[in-house]
Amino acid sequence: MATPTESPTPSSPTSSGRTPIAKEPTVDDPVTPAGVSPDDDLSADERALLVDNLRFVLDGRWRATRETVRENSNRADLLPDPSRTLEEARAHTLEVMRELASQGFAAAGFAADHGGTGDIGASITAIEMLGYADLSLMVKAGVQWGLFGGAVENLGTKRHHDKYVPGIIDLDVLGCFAMTETGHGSNVQAIETTATYDRDTREFVIHSPTPSSRKDYIGGAAEHARFAAVFAQLITGGPGEEPEGRGVHCFVVPIRDEDGNDLPGVTTSDCGYKGGLDGVDNGRIMFDNVRIPAENLLNRYADVAEDGSYSSPIENINRRFFTMLGTLIRGRVSVAATAGAAGRKALTLATRYGLIRKQFEAPEATDEITVLDYLGHQRKLLPLIAKSYAIAFAQNEIVAELHDVQSVAPDDSDAGRQRQLEGQAAGLKAYATWHASHSINVSREACGGAGYLDENQLSIIRGDIDVFTTFEGDNTIMMQLIAKELLSSYSDDVQGLSAGGWVRFIAGMARDVVAEKTAVRQVVQTLLDSSDEDTEKSALTDRSTQIRLFRNREDHLVRTCAQRLRRALDDDNDAFDVFNNAQDHLLKVGHAHIERVVLEAFVEAIENCDSRSAAELLGKVGDLFVYSALEADLSWFMMHRHISVERAKAVRRGVNELCQELRPHARSLVDAFGVPEELLSAPMLVNG
Amino acid sequence: MATPTESPTPSSPTSSGRTPIAKEPTVDDPVTPAGVSPDDDLSADERALLVDNLRFVLDGRWRATRETVRENSNRADLLPDPSRTLEEARAHTLEVMRELASQGFAAAGFAADHGGTGDIGASITAIEMLGYADLSLMVKAGVQWGLFGGAVENLGTKRHHDKYVPGIIDLDVLGCFAMTETGHGSNVQAIETTATYDRDTREFVIHSPTPSSRKDYIGGAAEHARFAAVFAQLITGGPGEEPEGRGVHCFVVPIRDEDGNDLPGVTTSDCGYKGGLDGVDNGRIMFDNVRIPAENLLNRYADVAEDGSYSSPIENINRRFFTMLGTLIRGRVSVAATAGAAGRKALTLATRYGLIRKQFEAPEATDEITVLDYLGHQRKLLPLIAKSYAIAFAQNEIVAELHDVQSVAPDDSDAGRQRQLEGQAAGLKAYATWHASHSINVSREACGGAGYLDENQLSIIRGDIDVFTTFEGDNTIMMQLIAKELLSSYSDDVQGLSAGGWVRFIAGMARDVVAEKTAVRQVVQTLLDSSDEDTEKSALTDRSTQIRLFRNREDHLVRTCAQRLRRALDDDNDAFDVFNNAQDHLLKVGHAHIERVVLEAFVEAIENCDSRSAAELLGKVGDLFVYSALEADLSWFMMHRHISVERAKAVRRGVNELCQELRPHARSLVDAFGVPEELLSAPMLVNG
Repeated sequence: MATPTESPTPSSPTSSGRTPIAKEPTVDDPVTPAGVSPDDDLSADERALLVDNLRFVLDGRWRATRETVRENSNRADLLPDPSRTLEEARAHTLEVMRELASQGFAAAGFAADHGGTGDIGASITAIEMLGYADLSLMVKAGVQWGLFGGAVENLGTKRHHDKYVPGIIDLDVLGCFAMTETGHGSNVQAIETTATYDRDTREFVIHSPTPSSRKDYIGGAAEHARFAAVFAQLITGGPGEEPEGRGVHCFVVPIRDEDGNDLPGVTTSDCGYKGGLDGVDNGRIMFDNVRIPAENLLNRYADVAEDGSYSSPIENINRRFFTMLGTLIRGRVSVAATAGAAGRKALTLATRYGLIRKQFEAPEATDEITVLDYLGHQRKLLPLIAKSYAIAFAQNEIVAELHDVQSVAPDDSDAGRQRQLEGQAAGLKAYATWHASHSINVSREACGGAGYLDENQLSIIRGDIDVFTTFEGDNTIMMQLIAKELLSSYSDDVQGLSAGGWVRFIAGMARDVVAEKTAVRQVVQTLLDSSDEDTEKSALTDRSTQIRLFRNREDHLVRTCAQRLRRALDDDNDAFDVFNNAQDHLLKVGHAHIERVVLEAFVEAIENCDSRSAAELLGKVGDLFVYSALEADLSWFMMHRHISVERAKAVRRGVNELCQELRPHARSLVDAFGVPEELLSAPMLVNG
Repeated sequence: MATPTESPTPSSPTSSGRTPIAKEPTVDDPVTPAGVSPDDDLSADERALLVDNLRFVLDGRWRATRETVRENSNRADLLPDPSRTLEEARAHTLEVMRELASQGFAAAGFAADHGGTGDIGASITAIEMLGYADLSLMVKAGVQWGLFGGAVENLGTKRHHDKYVPGIIDLDVLGCFAMTETGHGSNVQAIETTATYDRDTREFVIHSPTPSSRKDYIGGAAEHARFAAVFAQLITGGPGEEPEGRGVHCFVVPIRDEDGNDLPGVTTSDCGYKGGLDGVDNGRIMFDNVRIPAENLLNRYADVAEDGSYSSPIENINRRFFTMLGTLIRGRVSVAATAGAAGRKALTLATRYGLIRKQFEAPEATDEITVLDYLGHQRKLLPLIAKSYAIAFAQNEIVAELHDVQSVAPDDSDAGRQRQLEGQAAGLKAYATWHASHSINVSREACGGAGYLDENQLSIIRGDIDVFTTFEGDNTIMMQLIAKELLSSYSDDVQGLSAGGWVRFIAGMARDVVAEKTAVRQVVQTLLDSSDEDTEKSALTDRSTQIRLFRNREDHLVRTCAQRLRRALDDDNDAFDVFNNAQDHLLKVGHAHIERVVLEAFVEAIENCDSRSAAELLGKVGDLFVYSALEADLSWFMMHRHISVERAKAVRRGVNELCQELRPHARSLVDAFGVPEELLSAPMLVNG
């Protein structure tokens, strides 16, 4: 992942560059908020400045976008209202989207010559920030502008851009993204919907041949979408050719008329009640030989001539498929980003509650103990806050990389860089959404009965976030994907291979190909160059030792996993069995890799922080992230002799000590997340 | 925990004793269900018998009750319906409760001379079984019959039993259990509601003096309850005495008239929407000097004479409080039991889905791979199934112990045994509800998008179960409670001590008091006597080695925790700080203890299983429970040199191997849970 040093793009007009925002304290500021204990040794002014400086670092390159959305979304009426019926919730979400559209919210996501303003990073960041208000709104906006709009923008050509993009931006064209089928979630290449070219009429015939080919879980399909970006197996043949399957392609298919009735041959239905996201109308679509004009094929990467002959600049069918899919990673990155926001909001609510809620110790003291003063409570929340910081920095980097990769003209695109970006996006999506889901569960529980009441929001966020580990790529599949990419050094040849085929490929690779291909970032290289290779000899608080431990783990896992696969195949085992027996090893590779990338992003963020007090605090937060990550995987580190028994005990002690050191700063740490104050409305924060 | 060998009580009329049910296969039986792979080497008949035998062991002493509830609840109309409004859901739950009441469902929970049939074990088991249908129903039934009814039954005397119990059983008297206050959840002794005796009118005046004294989260208080069992600080004085606080006592307070209007001085309000349990009307109550007749004091453990003088057979105020509380553990045990049921149901749904859902490997094979054939998927579900078995056995034992302890006349009660039961109930409640919550989260995720649709139930169960880790005792507090009990050998003197006071008590104890007080069960003693003490020398599959590892961990943790507390206090540290710095150690003591108890219950269950094939399969399930428990805590075992590096690697490998060995039996293992078939209704199990 590259580390951008550019200044903000033109569409982020108010950004103030690298200098920390040292704004004058206003009358609202200098009051020390409840629960900020006096022992953090800061005046109210100093604390406000520290929070601003932390927020500046966290906000990253699109901080101006963040500030704009914060200002505009600081309204409690944007929060989900559980008293709405499903129908009302859906209608309300659409209404808010129309309000957003009228403010030009979506323009950043589309190129200037398609009617947008072309700032991909700002677009993703703005959608992420909606997650602080209402995850249904974020998902519905993400479907319309990110997925449906992204398919038209990235897979279509001028005729599609001209015809659809302005309407997508202003919501005249409401669309959905019809990829998943009832029988086919993760394995998109196996979808069954067909799009057969009819030479006589110059049409494609879209058809669902089986119950399992039904499009399912499609956001927007139940009610609002009038168009669908339908993924289907393209079947066509030129003159004299037998029509044949050309793989998965995407088509714009009108599904409803202006009155919301299904068009002929289209049957939509409703997925009904879900575990959350009440404002999103997920539905199903069946196609019974639905005819669409030939120009509705999104033909950037492949086309069908009038006579039915098929052509594509990408010869290999797998590479073509993955190239198309690759352009759509914006959705995946948005989902990870939003999960981050939701997790940070939950931790903010739980931390604030932990700072005013008191319990026990009454008999001898005049007052009860603030629950965040209990080590057990600190251990619940503070490591999650630290990890949220780490993930936020990595997420900022991936958004920047995506922005840079997708902002160049298609012909200048760097396939290798795109490929690595896809891998990182997959891994980080899994790592970030699991973390968010876990953080929200823990936050709910940390607020006890109050946490279970919808009025305090945590239970709603918990329901909404749950599916983030599933959609835009099941997390287990995502972790496996990045691991497979690492082991095969992002080779083009492995995409689309079955598990067994992939194992045979790995076994055939030269041994030394399994190595780090990504460039090491400067700050990490410098740290490594100036430190001892022996991790046991150097202090665990040394950043270089920390990086080395994470790197050594990753290298060890990659190396031994490849060896294990080769050895097992040499012993004449079935290739699928070889893969399957090593699946837990492979998933661990993915996890170790992403955690190393996340740590290095954190290190870079600390390095780039101009404020000394903020950098110092970030340093401790970074330590807590490292110590608790090591603690979570301590058995591995000990088993493979990367950490000695004595050092392992120090890790455990270290987590406790860091929790206690960071306790006085808990409020500042969550305030720096910058969740708009009105969106933190929760009676429990008033009643205690 | 005692291990009952009694035959079933008279109220379990159809139980067939120890012999496994070897019923003839019926026409419904011999069809091998979908997803049962042929390689489990069993005919359909053999499989059906195996499932019956497993179920026999799992069902335990109240298997007849389980079968009766199964038969009566095998109706899909009992499942929660997410399309109901909050009001409809609440009304529906009450309606089903009335149906249950009309069938005499609740009689078992009350003594024969109060109008019941006096089978406590059957009562808890029946309420647990409702959890397979609808957790709202279980909770509302638990509040009415277990908590409110339990308070009247156990804290009241003849006048209360005569007046209220028959109406409680048949729902003429709808009640709620008003203990928790907005400001006081875990620390019940600190509640603020007062009950002041007025000698002139022979009344108690119930009053909420502050906003934080508001009764909160009270099931039934929002709508249906006409009475409340109110916990309040009793204030009274005899002739010539200044009225003074006598600690927390319980009073029956009428709160609504027949038309559902608040009575004078009572203000109820609604907690509104929650993260789940839509059918339970949680609410709040404020009392403004509400007058109730003196006889409404539940006076089994303390009384106020006409002249206001206070008397109690239990002199110590703390001991009195905890004695009263102790009689109410039925609720805690029920919650743990029901969480177990909910977790088993979720795992049943996820396992069945995993056996029909196929994904990937299409390019080379004729069909895709069944997802449960992936090691990664097995690793998600099978260890959770194994742990569910383990917990079910421990839960059966605690229900039996509770039944036996509470079935004797009050004068014959064994205070020590009651005390240990309370500790075990607290620890197991935490262990079981955390496991259930985790299992349900994992099950939802293992079913992907389908798992998120309410029609497939998992998302509803996920929302409903969430608060089980909080109510009837916050889990962290529960784990801490059992740990504190262990360290102080269940001493009477520590109850009600503050954290600091408790530390000072521990420091003052003779060192050798910190030891196992519970009797070792015979089967464990035999295993230990006949095996090598050196765990590294004996095989990890040896049951004795497994028990020793779990016992050694517990002993080590208890011993070192006590030492640590003493040493820290010797160094002149503040007693609360000493406690707090060791809090994570203490929580680990609780966990290690409960996990050991759970393992030993599993060992006993295997020992008592008459069917060889069932016992053999249970043995493997037991191994998987042990291996995955060791894996989860491997760093501790290695750090404290209870497990070597080499053995640690064998643990990891062992989990994989056991998952693969158990895979062919996955369907049988979940079928044995015996969730009524109609309650497993889920379109995803039809569509795949």
